[in-house]
Amino acid sequence: MDNDINILLVSASPRRYGAVGFVEKFIIELGKEVEKININAINVYEYNIQPCLGCVSDDIKFCVLPCIIDDDMRNLYNIVLKSDGFIFVTPIYWYNVPGPLKNFIDRLTVLENAIFIEGRSKVEGKVAGFIAVGNDTGALAVIQNLMAIMNSFGITIPPWALAYHESEEDPVYNEKFVLDIANVLRCVVLMVKLLKGKIYHVEYWYRADTDYISTTMKIARRVYDMLLDEIN
Amino acid sequence: MDNDINILLVSASPRRYGAVGFVEKFIIELGKEVEKININAINVYEYNIQPCLGCVSDDIKFCVLPCIIDDDMRNLYNIVLKSDGFIFVTPIYWYNVPGPLKNFIDRLTVLENAIFIEGRSKVEGKVAGFIAVGNDTGALAVIQNLMAIMNSFGITIPPWALAYHESEEDPVYNEKFVLDIANVLRCVVLMVKLLKGKIYHVEYWYRADTDYISTTMKIARRVYDMLLDEIN
Amino acid sequence: MDNDINILLVSASPRRYGAVGFVEKFIIELGKEVEKININAINVYEYNIQPCLGCVSDDIKFCVLPCIIDDDMRNLYNIVLKSDGFIFVTPIYWYNVPGPLKNFIDRLTVLENAIFIEGRSKVEGKVAGFIAVGNDTGALAVIQNLMAIMNSFGITIPPWALAYHESEEDPVYNEKFVLDIANVLRCVVLMVKLLKGKIYHVEYWYRADTDYISTTMKIARRVYDMLLDEIN
Amino acid sequence: MDNDINILLVSASPRRYGAVGFVEKFIIELGKEVEKININAINVYEYNIQPCLGCVSDDIKFCVLPCIIDDDMRNLYNIVLKSDGFIFVTPIYWYNVPGPLKNFIDRLTVLENAIFIEGRSKVEGKVAGFIAVGNDTGALAVIQNLMAIMNSFGITIPPWALAYHESEEDPVYNEKFVLDIANVLRCVVLMVKLLKGKIYHVEYWYRADTDYISTTMKIARRVYDMLLDEIN
Repeated sequence: MDNDINILLVSASPRRYGAVGFVEKFIIELGKEVEKININAINVYEYNIQPCLGCVSDDIKFCVLPCIIDDDMRNLYNIVLKSDGFIFVTPIYWYNVPGPLKNFIDRLTVLENAIFIEGRSKVEGKVAGFIAVGNDTGALAVIQNLMAIMNSFGITIPPWALAYHESEEDPVYNEKFVLDIANVLRCVVLMVKLLKGKIYHVEYWYRADTDYISTTMKIARRVYDMLLDEIN
Repeated sequence: MDNDINILLVSASPRRYGAVGFVEKFIIELGKEVEKININAINVYEYNIQPCLGCVSDDIKFCVLPCIIDDDMRNLYNIVLKSDGFIFVTPIYWYNVPGPLKNFIDRLTVLENAIFIEGRSKVEGKVAGFIAVGNDTGALAVIQNLMAIMNSFGITIPPWALAYHESEEDPVYNEKFVLDIANVLRCVVLMVKLLKGKIYHVEYWYRADTDYISTTMKIARRVYDMLLDEIN
Repeated sequence: MDNDINILLVSASPRRYGAVGFVEKFIIELGKEVEKININAINVYEYNIQPCLGCVSDDIKFCVLPCIIDDDMRNLYNIVLKSDGFIFVTPIYWYNVPGPLKNFIDRLTVLENAIFIEGRSKVEGKVAGFIAVGNDTGALAVIQNLMAIMNSFGITIPPWALAYHESEEDPVYNEKFVLDIANVLRCVVLMVKLLKGKIYHVEYWYRADTDYISTTMKIARRVYDMLLDEIN
Repeated sequence: MDNDINILLVSASPRRYGAVGFVEKFIIELGKEVEKININAINVYEYNIQPCLGCVSDDIKFCVLPCIIDDDMRNLYNIVLKSDGFIFVTPIYWYNVPGPLKNFIDRLTVLENAIFIEGRSKVEGKVAGFIAVGNDTGALAVIQNLMAIMNSFGITIPPWALAYHESEEDPVYNEKFVLDIANVLRCVVLMVKLLKGKIYHVEYWYRADTDYISTTMKIARRVYDMLLDEIN
């Protein structure tokens, strides 16, 4: 295990046994078995995250750490700051993220706003990937919005940083999606390694070779079976 | 006053004295003085609106009135159902609405989902307009998303249903914005009247004649002065 | 046939035998058999439509009819002006419309810009619906953008004005899509009738009753079979 | 001059003397004086770039180099392939790019589609930044869409890869915009250097120190004065 690579999986799911829950567990397993890293995971629905109060509009200097609101973000800020990369896993609620994930993102303003206080965004140079799942369309409307937001925070978006599943079918059966998830994690990790000087070159980013497909599909199916067992 | 036209102003502002607060009060005054209607206003920040739990993904039949969550939405649903039209007034938080407004929208799913239960969306045919204000860009990213969401609920979008202000300057000084706000309300009201059979024809929608500009600017300045007095 | 209702179908397809072609022919048939109207159809790929030159940025007064560019738009402007409603049928090219459709839209600026010349947009109060088809995701990113653009022209968006198909499967097999297409046309036509004073009330907008499903599916299958015959 | 860093500036402007033209010339000067690189620039309006015909929907294998269409893209593909990074500079035409830029992007599909032919996108790992200018709003709607498209091609988006100017005022007077443009170029170049193994570490990405502001503003004003001279 490479304990020097800190990836934070930020999911938003009121239904842990659903598609978002599957993706979350799949990524954690991919971390262990393929990328050889431990992945830290938080589900924004399980924390008390109050809405941003927009103090920055009163005076840009009001928006500093610790945020004026005393809730679970105080702890989550530390987790975010320690992380090198993020994977957002969101359900598609009306072509957009659900409210609790938006609250989490809005509250990150205090980290970005450091650029106006100390001259540098506290998340500058970190890396992010984006995964959206839903029964119906809207993934790209969600993902394009998240990309622009994160990039405005000073965050790097590595190649192939997006994956989506828009169907009522269980995501494990969507092989393109399974492979894309693995590659989102792979590309985020590669970019983190590059930025930390742990590697100096990336030969290729997206992997679609038979070995990789077979390994990732096997993990996906095992995670899915475990989840089925848990529900039954 | 025409008490047969029910317009609900849905704002989302943690800072009542800011730009959203101005727009809200301005619209209420426009209602009284120009459109001769009373406007009902709610600020989603002042209610207990819990996040949607996505029950619809478990079984589409689970998402029925009253929503499984017992919070202020129980009362707000009645207000929404009684309304003929909506004006959304939102701050721009990272090219998107703030979390509390997204929670409110997600919770409206129970009204739209009636199409799968009873064969008809409970908000079908209602009318909506959209106003976004911020210190920086992003208004159109917000508004285009809201339009597609509301239209997917079965809601009508009348001509010129959008207005935006993206500047640190007080919105009262943005004459284009002031005029656009008045026209958003005007067009929402005209469409409601048309759909309710109270008028049979709209000669023109957007008004930019001298009288109209002068009347609406006068109201805007008076509202602004009142707000300044309140703050000081 | 009601010759007083002019609906213009604007499609954008380099491949007439593909999904866009199917949707186009299906809507024309729905017009005849269900709505009892003739639908005028243009495919922007079959016209010489040069890109907008942005004269409006030099001087807002430069952008007047006839546009400075002498190409097929000169004729198309007349067709647009005579139309009461539009149905846009676009393929999804990278979460957006293809270039030729964007050129067509940009060139419509001359009609909208009349608001600054004569005080009124020449397309104000017309009605539009939006249909996007592709092998992959992106429909909502496309449709939300088109909605905001058209509404900024002063165009009305009736309830349920969107339909999409994101799959390699032939669209005729997507019953939800087939029904949504029929309802996009239905709602555009109803709104045009309301705005023209031909009806005073709409009892319900979206139809999903057995008769309607059966009628529209039958037409869809017949159109599909005809297209298969043409290809073979 | 570091001749090993190839940045391609892709602009889309029918009006060379306008805001896009200023940004283009400013970036070329920043390249020479600040980044010590030569920047290659193309304006899509000056080339014959026919619309994509969507062959990929007939058979994914049909979309290969050289594209079936024999036009200026044949040459532009080589320029794109030789480039390590791209800066897109686009006007905002109705919350979107103008048609000619969309045609250029759609035609790049042949490079991305190599992933299905040879197992790898021909633009994988390249870097992109995005600049949008207009008299009115819409920049973020444009930029978020471009980011998602380019990332789906396998392209890296470095920190702070966006800049926008939404005003009728000449962009040289928007100091935030001038600084953001310089940082878009800076971050694209830093990421290219990192990916090519020319540097192993980036101390900080966004620069807002007095020296940098003063240098970049000086260049911006000189470029602006030169353009004024050319017009007069």
